[in-house]
Amino acid sequence: MNDIGKRAKIAVRQLARKNGNQKNQVLLNLADELVSRCDEILIANKLDIDLALASGLSPALIDRLILNPVRLEGISADLRRVASLPDPIGEQFDHATLSNGLKLHKQRVPLGVLGIIYESRPNVTIDAAALAIKTSNAAILRGGSEALNTNRALIKIVHAALEMNQMPVAAIQFIDDPDRANVIKMLALRDYIDVIIPRGGAGLHQFCRDNSAITVISGGIGICHLFVDESADFEKAIKVIHNAKTQRPTVCNALDVVLVHRAIAADFLPRLVTRLTADGVAFRAEGVALSNLQPLRPNIQPANEADFDTEWLSLVLSLKVVNDIDEAIDHITLHSTAHSDGILTRDLNHANRFIAEVDSAAVYVNASTRFTDGGEFGLGAEVAVSTQRLHARGPMGLRELTTYKWVAIGDYHIRE
Amino acid sequence: MNDIGKRAKIAVRQLARKNGNQKNQVLLNLADELVSRCDEILIANKLDIDLALASGLSPALIDRLILNPVRLEGISADLRRVASLPDPIGEQFDHATLSNGLKLHKQRVPLGVLGIIYESRPNVTIDAAALAIKTSNAAILRGGSEALNTNRALIKIVHAALEMNQMPVAAIQFIDDPDRANVIKMLALRDYIDVIIPRGGAGLHQFCRDNSAITVISGGIGICHLFVDESADFEKAIKVIHNAKTQRPTVCNALDVVLVHRAIAADFLPRLVTRLTADGVAFRAEGVALSNLQPLRPNIQPANEADFDTEWLSLVLSLKVVNDIDEAIDHITLHSTAHSDGILTRDLNHANRFIAEVDSAAVYVNASTRFTDGGEFGLGAEVAVSTQRLHARGPMGLRELTTYKWVAIGDYHIRE
Repeated sequence: MNDIGKRAKIAVRQLARKNGNQKNQVLLNLADELVSRCDEILIANKLDIDLALASGLSPALIDRLILNPVRLEGISADLRRVASLPDPIGEQFDHATLSNGLKLHKQRVPLGVLGIIYESRPNVTIDAAALAIKTSNAAILRGGSEALNTNRALIKIVHAALEMNQMPVAAIQFIDDPDRANVIKMLALRDYIDVIIPRGGAGLHQFCRDNSAITVISGGIGICHLFVDESADFEKAIKVIHNAKTQRPTVCNALDVVLVHRAIAADFLPRLVTRLTADGVAFRAEGVALSNLQPLRPNIQPANEADFDTEWLSLVLSLKVVNDIDEAIDHITLHSTAHSDGILTRDLNHANRFIAEVDSAAVYVNASTRFTDGGEFGLGAEVAVSTQRLHARGPMGLRELTTYKWVAIGDYHIRE
Repeated sequence: MNDIGKRAKIAVRQLARKNGNQKNQVLLNLADELVSRCDEILIANKLDIDLALASGLSPALIDRLILNPVRLEGISADLRRVASLPDPIGEQFDHATLSNGLKLHKQRVPLGVLGIIYESRPNVTIDAAALAIKTSNAAILRGGSEALNTNRALIKIVHAALEMNQMPVAAIQFIDDPDRANVIKMLALRDYIDVIIPRGGAGLHQFCRDNSAITVISGGIGICHLFVDESADFEKAIKVIHNAKTQRPTVCNALDVVLVHRAIAADFLPRLVTRLTADGVAFRAEGVALSNLQPLRPNIQPANEADFDTEWLSLVLSLKVVNDIDEAIDHITLHSTAHSDGILTRDLNHANRFIAEVDSAAVYVNASTRFTDGGEFGLGAEVAVSTQRLHARGPMGLRELTTYKWVAIGDYHIRE
């Protein structure tokens, strides 16, 4: 594992000499090869699927494993899109000339070596490799054991695309041995890996944070709230809540909790529940909310404490009545994972207080929480959605895979 | 310790409601109180100095402990300067309107709770408190046990200044119990502390990195290089090296290693050594460098391998002859701590290659490494000099004690 780390560090230096066109050419060649070598990939993928079926893996997990010509075309199109984005590396900013004449600026450079640990989806292998190459980072990839054969086939093609362009294959290395002990070894490579990026469920993130000697970009867990203020437009608020809850309930920016101002609860809650029930949503309502929903339907249950600390990832929604915006902000501060939280209101003062006091990666006024996403926010490519505070928060694009160095150019300047 | 963490988290929310003027007023009151309550501080400081003398602490360490009216006036002046700097909190940037009309921007927010661990200098207590208050962060301070009485007196005054302005005293908490086990407990407070900032020697930084469950801003270790290229102006190059080595040899941006191009070594090295010997510099020269320095003087010794991996922090300089810029960059890549490294040259191509390929926090062309400093770089206040890659590199000012949140303002926007 140390050797893998050393090779990656050397590759970073070699990548530093490549320009944007050379890196983009790797991505374009990779896009071509994925399509032209489709058969080779699908044979490997079939092996993984057969093994998964034999071992009784759930249909949902098997679906994540599957590649087919359409999915490969999609991955290929993504690669062409990433190639078309501007290259962040080398960008200069914060120029200044000091009073002594020394010229100073910051220059964007790669983070270094990325350690990317992911689960069953084999498309992450290509996605992670492409984002690393685009940003001149080296990457050490550790994919799920269920996708081992597929990942081996994909990495072979990544290496071919690198070689076509005289790029070091060590820029993208894959941990070929599925032994889980390798993850622990990887998390200890502090001298070689600059950042660990887990891509997967909450358990994987937690495991990396608990076992890593390296900074982990944690994210992907969103207990998301919308507060319906006294002055909210009912019809529009219901549409936003419907969208945030039902448009794609399995993802981290989907809505988990609705807080409703006491003054409108009796009117608003029954209408909300009627509309969302029609789309199969079930509810967990705290006492006051529950009393506003009489007579109860079968899809409404009394909430317990844990229901306000649960990321549902399904068509379940927690409901709570609050006395005012203060209680709403207090509740969010205590229970949110600081991913995406919003207020629905016509009151500008309340909107401003919510923006100032709710400290989440993304804070919304009169919009669905579903927008927290690199694509939606216009970043072009998404690396992760960070819920940590340092380095980057919320959707991370290419720029968030970089850091900077200070460059000072003088005429033999000395410090007085 | 958990209670300290909880109180700090609550204080962060209370600080979020204060504006820049209110925070500056705390700093100005603190500046006044330090001077008007000078006697109280000096009595406590005398206790610490007497204990230090009795326990045989070194004169250098005792000097760091000492406060007097002049030093307190200096700290007070620093506070007024920090108060006069712009408030980074609330700053808005990266505005965009998405094609669907959703308005997006980033807004600068505090990092949260800072854990600051430092050694004997009691001025850090005031400095750290001031930078935290200015940036709306809460801070948990752990100072050196030698300065315990002084720190207690200073914290009492910090709390008084907070109270005068209806600010929560829990914004700045001090670990009053000198038991070292408390440092370990503090480094484990992942749920409450957002970042650990050690201020002290290399040992303290290493200890924090090895024992912390929280991200540590590491820094403060600089093995700094200057490469004298074939085309360098000899006279000016010697002035820059003299400045970088002798102007303040005990600090992290002082020069440790000079690499000299083979073509000029025979001319350049004797002149360099003559000039620096006059100011008391001793040398460690590798084989070729040594052969260019015949006859040897008593202050020139043959270098061993470790001499190129040593931060001297004193008037010692390692010398090595390299074949070309490639060997210089290779040497720096292998031996630098990525703090501050530079090239002295008239060759623009070499300057550009050095900037592109040397990956240090600060890269210099024709200037002394001594400029790597928040004050010199125009940041106004310096929090630390980071040698890590994530979040911030090099001198860190007020802005580097902040992060951002995304703010999205819509008209009941939903994701299609």
